[in-house]
This record gives sequence, structure tokens and C-alpha cells, in this order.
Amino acid sequence: MDKVYVISEHAATYHQLLATAQLPDLALTHNAEEATIWLADPPLAVSKLPHANALRWLQSTFAGTDALIQAPFRHYQLTNVRGIFGPLMAEYVFGHLLTNTRHIGQYAKQQAQCHWQPQPYQSLHGQTLAILGTGAIGQHIATVAHAFGMTVLGTNQTGRSVEAFDHTMTLPELQQRLREIDVLVSTLPATDKTHQCLNAAFWQHAQDLFFINVGRGATVDEHALIHALEAKQLRGAVLDVMQQEPLPESHPFWTHPKVTVTPHIAAVSFPDQVFTLFADNYRRWHAGKPLVHHVDFDKGY
Amino acid sequence: MDKVYVISEHAATYHQLLATAQLPDLALTHNAEEATIWLADPPLAVSKLPHANALRWLQSTFAGTDALIQAPFRHYQLTNVRGIFGPLMAEYVFGHLLTNTRHIGQYAKQQAQCHWQPQPYQSLHGQTLAILGTGAIGQHIATVAHAFGMTVLGTNQTGRSVEAFDHTMTLPELQQRLREIDVLVSTLPATDKTHQCLNAAFWQHAQDLFFINVGRGATVDEHALIHALEAKQLRGAVLDVMQQEPLPESHPFWTHPKVTVTPHIAAVSFPDQVFTLFADNYRRWHAGKPLVHHVDFDKGY
Repeated sequence: MDKVYVISEHAATYHQLLATAQLPDLALTHNAEEATIWLADPPLAVSKLPHANALRWLQSTFAGTDALIQAPFRHYQLTNVRGIFGPLMAEYVFGHLLTNTRHIGQYAKQQAQCHWQPQPYQSLHGQTLAILGTGAIGQHIATVAHAFGMTVLGTNQTGRSVEAFDHTMTLPELQQRLREIDVLVSTLPATDKTHQCLNAAFWQHAQDLFFINVGRGATVDEHALIHALEAKQLRGAVLDVMQQEPLPESHPFWTHPKVTVTPHIAAVSFPDQVFTLFADNYRRWHAGKPLVHHVDFDKGY
Repeated sequence: MDKVYVISEHAATYHQLLATAQLPDLALTHNAEEATIWLADPPLAVSKLPHANALRWLQSTFAGTDALIQAPFRHYQLTNVRGIFGPLMAEYVFGHLLTNTRHIGQYAKQQAQCHWQPQPYQSLHGQTLAILGTGAIGQHIATVAHAFGMTVLGTNQTGRSVEAFDHTMTLPELQQRLREIDVLVSTLPATDKTHQCLNAAFWQHAQDLFFINVGRGATVDEHALIHALEAKQLRGAVLDVMQQEPLPESHPFWTHPKVTVTPHIAAVSFPDQVFTLFADNYRRWHAGKPLVHHVDFDKGY
């Protein structure tokens, strides 16, 4: 008999889902110390980890597990959620990109003034999108970008080719070709290797680039980003993730005319979808099979 | 030797393109009366048609040729532009749809107040989109909708199946199933048959539907549309086309909280693309081959 402990913003929903699912040989506990399995939002789980004496497997409810990776505990198997964020991320990316290229905010202002005035624009068709990260999320964004007629480049650690992308390369290779890129989307996780990798050196060849960050704030040197905007290396930045969240009220991103800030909502974990993944993984656990969506503590993803 | 007359908002650009292209046996004229070929924006061409004594072929720079169809002159071949609007229309549709579903305007207001507050939302994934019109524009919108994981229905006059759509039917058949539809996009042209076809009877089975009109304003009974919004048959309407354009300042659409008005910009004719189609068609004309993108005066498309 395993005991599962839930620590999540949506704990009540997960408790209900667990009660309904009746997973074999699994009981709910409210005592972290006796739980062998945790279903957990990483930022909430961190403070309880010192009490995780019995923990053998933690199923993260997020894709990003950096909060757990950085903690000094690695005595358990860690799995995250994958495959359910791609559609939401693609919606965020193209919603914000098209809001910019098709002047949707400008037309809202004109409507408030009953002002009928077409604005010139360019199509995404034929533009080049580069996506940092060729995982499931990057692949989904690439697929939608192709439907809009864009050319899609991707980066990963070795530059290996990935089906959904027209070309793949490493991040340093992309940096040299940044002038060719119209739109850059980062899906990078927060790891030792990605820490502030989007810095002044990275942007040096950029020209009038539109940047969207749906990965992690820690990958961005925020001072260098503002400088790149002012130097017109970037024409705009849409940021769903920041180094500090919630973004402090005094932070210059809030009021910068070329920065769009959203409160980390590009992809949220809808509990129903997360629970489906957890239940599938629990059945594998119960049958003695290896878990899926395993996170490597050293790689950080 | 043919003589071509250009009447367009972008006439200067077309004159340059004609000079550069050096099409065989074709001379530019500024005298409408002697021109055998017109390259023309339909609304501008209409007033000159009484002088079109020599006209044998008019290449419209627009997809919509209703201004010409309604005029009492049919002594010439009419062709329009097709295949270049699909990508632009899809950008407009998904830019505006995602602005709504992903609360992009709401987040802009929150940013102005330095307010970090996630809003609940639903994914397009799994939702049902119905597109009125299964032509090139409808097909392109359907392709992008599939990339976002939507189910896509389409309507045409006979209900015949069309590849990009999951199901097709006639407009009266769709009307009976409107309750199942989350998002409705109209690409309908203005013809005798489509005149105010989106009326009170059409909306009677709609429930919390999001409506986007990128077709023609004449297809909509505007009073019935406002009533359907107030009756919550519709949860919002994005209108790029209106019965009267520019929309009169006193029109209730400007200030209705659930209506988004844009100044007929969903797809504009970029002169380079239109000219490529014209030059291809001219080479066919010169070679004695049938023209492509022929418009039937009786059908209206």
C-alpha cells in the first residue's frame, strides 16, 4: 500500500479526483512524513522536502521543476508533466505575436475614439521564427508556426535535427545568425547551463527582433534585455516569466513601452489533465514499470 | 497590343511594377476609354465603368468584387485575386480569437496598474470552430485551427465535403447545430443569396458563441446581431466588415462592450502579390489561354 500526499494550489480538486479514481493500493494521507508518493506544485513542495522521509516518487504538477532541482534533496524519483502544455503555449505565443503584428491594441484604442483608420502591417507568412528548445513545447509551437507559413529554426544542446523544425542548431550557432530571425521564442528551463544565457553577448547580432519568453525568467539577463530594447536589437518583448515572481512593483518591465508582462499564465496545469498523467504513471508504478516524464536532477529537465 | 488602365489606391506602385515587368504587347494608358484591360480596386472602378467602352478583362485587386457585380455592366471578363488572403485572414481570426480567450486586453490593463493577477481561461484545444464558406480562405483558417487542436466544421451551398474540414454541411444544417459551436467565422461574400443570412432566425440555437466576420457586412442583420449579443446567444463579435464602411460614428457597434470593430483590414491586397497574379493571368491572356480566378457575375464569386 502506497500513501500519496498532495501539496498544490488545487489540492481540493486533486483530493476529489483521487477519491473518484480509486487507484489500486493507494491511500491519501495528509501527513507528508509518511507519504511514499507526492503529487505536488514544486514551489509549495520545497519547504516540505526536509520532512520527506518516506518519499520515493514525486509527480510534479508543473513542467518546470527548477524549485525542486535546486533543493538539496535527491533521494526520490522526480517526474513532471509533459505534452499538455504545447497547445496552451502555442496559443500564448501566437496570441501575443499577432496582437503585436496586427495592431490589435491600437485598433482597440481607435475603437474607443470611433476612429476608422487602417494601419499597415506585414504577414507572418515567410517570416523566420527561432525557438530555443526543441522539446514537446517547442515542437508544438513549430507546428502552429508552419500553419502560419513561417520558417522555423530550433536550438538544442547538440544541434541534432528534430522533425517539426526546418533547421536546428546550438544556441551559440543561432547567436551568430540572429540577424536573420524575426521572432524568437524561448522555452528554455532554468538550469546551471541556461542561467542568464540570454545576455548582452547573445543579443549583439539581433536586429528589430520580437522576443517572447515562455521558459524561465532565470535564463534572461534583465538589464541586458532592457538595453537590447533601447538599442533596437529588439523591437518588443513579451514576458510571461521573470527572475522574481510576482514581478516587484518597482521593476522597469511594468512600465517599459516595448515590454508586455503577463503573470506566468502561458500554460497552466489544468488539474484534470495533470491527474490523468499522474494516474497513468501510478499504474506503471504499481505494475513495477519505469515511470514516464522522468526528470534528470543533473540535466535539470 | 493591349492597353492596361490602373485604378487603385496603390496605382503608383502598380505603375512601377508594370514598368519593371515589361509584359509583352502591353502598354499603360491613363485613359479608361481606350483600355482593353483594367487592373482595378472594385469600389474605385465602379464609377468609371460607364466609360469602359474598350474593356474586355478586368483584374480585381480585391477578393470581394461585389461592387462590380452590382453595377449594370457585364460586357467584360472579371477575375479576382485568390490564394493570397488565406494566411492574412487566419492571422486576423486567431489574433482576435486568442486576444479574447487568453485575456490579452485584460492583462494590458493589469500591466498599466502593475497588477500581477492570473485569470482563468480555456484552451482552444478541443473546441469546435465553424467556418461559413469552404473556399481558399476558409480552408486556410481550417488548417490553422487544426494546428490549435480544434474540430472544424464548414458550410457550402451543397454540403459537399472539402478536405481541410472535419465535417461540411449547408448553412441551414449548421443553423440547427449552432449550440455545438464555440466559434463561428464567416468568410461569405455578398451575394443575393447571402444577403442578411445571419439574422435572428440564424442565431436562435446559438449559445455563448464567439463570432468573427471577415466576409462581407451585407451578410449580417446588424440589429439581430446586437440582439443576439444581449440575449447571450453570442458572447462576443469581432467585425472587420460592416454594412456601411467606414462605420458611421453614431453606430452602436463602436461602443458595444462585446463588439470589436476593425476598419476592413483582415486581409489587404499587398500590391506585389496582386501584381504577380495579374502578370500570370496576363501571360495566359496573351497566349490565348483561359484566365484563372474567374468570377461568375450570376453566382457573385
